[in-house]
Amino acid sequence: MSVDEQMTAAGSHAPDSSPVLPASERTQVHRYKQYQRTSRDELYQVLDAGLVAHIGFVSDAGPMVIPMAYARDGDSLLVHGSTGAGVSRGAVAGAELAVTITILDGLVYAASLYDSTLNYRCATVYGTACGVEEDEKLRALRLISQRLMPGRWDEVRAPTAKELAATCVLRLPLGTASVKIRSGPPEDEPRSGTWTGELPFTVSVGTPRPQPGVDTAVPPSVTGARRLLAEAFRVPPG
Amino acid sequence: MSVDEQMTAAGSHAPDSSPVLPASERTQVHRYKQYQRTSRDELYQVLDAGLVAHIGFVSDAGPMVIPMAYARDGDSLLVHGSTGAGVSRGAVAGAELAVTITILDGLVYAASLYDSTLNYRCATVYGTACGVEEDEKLRALRLISQRLMPGRWDEVRAPTAKELAATCVLRLPLGTASVKIRSGPPEDEPRSGTWTGELPFTVSVGTPRPQPGVDTAVPPSVTGARRLLAEAFRVPPG
Repeated sequence: MSVDEQMTAAGSHAPDSSPVLPASERTQVHRYKQYQRTSRDELYQVLDAGLVAHIGFVSDAGPMVIPMAYARDGDSLLVHGSTGAGVSRGAVAGAELAVTITILDGLVYAASLYDSTLNYRCATVYGTACGVEEDEKLRALRLISQRLMPGRWDEVRAPTAKELAATCVLRLPLGTASVKIRSGPPEDEPRSGTWTGELPFTVSVGTPRPQPGVDTAVPPSVTGARRLLAEAFRVPPG
Repeated sequence: MSVDEQMTAAGSHAPDSSPVLPASERTQVHRYKQYQRTSRDELYQVLDAGLVAHIGFVSDAGPMVIPMAYARDGDSLLVHGSTGAGVSRGAVAGAELAVTITILDGLVYAASLYDSTLNYRCATVYGTACGVEEDEKLRALRLISQRLMPGRWDEVRAPTAKELAATCVLRLPLGTASVKIRSGPPEDEPRSGTWTGELPFTVSVGTPRPQPGVDTAVPPSVTGARRLLAEAFRVPPG
């Protein structure tokens, strides 16, 4: 299929939940094509492993990139965060977005610097987000909370009406997305006398630090976050 | 100083190396203003601790955000990477960029979900990058290499002329930048019976995995990367 045909296919109401990601010129990887992944499952795996999304959009002053907490909700992303200018001034809702989630998995030491690289999982979702409706907001916030602090929702009081009104959550459909994953050893041949290989990265959590004055036991939501990160960095086979 | 006056000041050839970052409407944080930092030292600290930059620009198809390796070189950023469409097709050199580096330092468990947040260090640099000249390229690549794999440059052969020609390195001046850092415990009061506090994140490296067939000892550049990450996650006091 040509790129044009693919774009037509992608534009013609292909269901968002197709097991193969719709191809388009925008999502086509042009360099290191061998790292491109096209299955929806792999997209979900990257999105479910990342902790922060970098939201790109075009403001009056030019491009902006802001980090935001997010969660996947089926075939869409929910984004939410203390984002300064962007979200609070309405520049993100309704605007064209590029939302990139990157997980660094390690350094790749090849026999040449040219072939040395990083192992990573990266997904970019393109599209337009809209604010979630008031009656959806509680569920959306719960999903985001469960994503980062599993169990916390039930340990603290529910959000007040005032807090809900002051909170903006956006939903971005996963209709147009590209995924790129590099894993494993260097691609060039080993060279006698030179160490080549991988140095894996992991994100781990340290010892919980209670706020001064708190003597309550560390709750399940804190130990749950440790488990969450362990899951995220169980790198899928390459 | 009003925002307009600040913009004029920033535009009137303020030296890039001023100890206080020039203020402008673009770099002004509008939400959680208390987290904005304005010293150049803090900008450098964030840039020197991050591992990957998210480069935002506007392509013909709309906004793009791509992850790239980078290094700081005095008052500019050098960026370089296997970036697919963007750099290899020339969309980045000369274009308006927003380059965001985010380091997640932990989860902040407040007594309410509304006040729960993340600890992070984040810097965004705005501007236009140009390709480094051929005679600068070797030094620029060495800086980027030293940043991620300290010492590797001297363990492997030098780049060939062909490799240099195939490599694109961009330089982005640090003239317009904003820095936002959140650290420490929740801001609201502790609540009797509820654990509140921080769960710190660290990125650490695992056991080096030699490429199949390699039996050389692990070299200093691999152990050096471990030290590098330990430095990066020595969080500056909030």
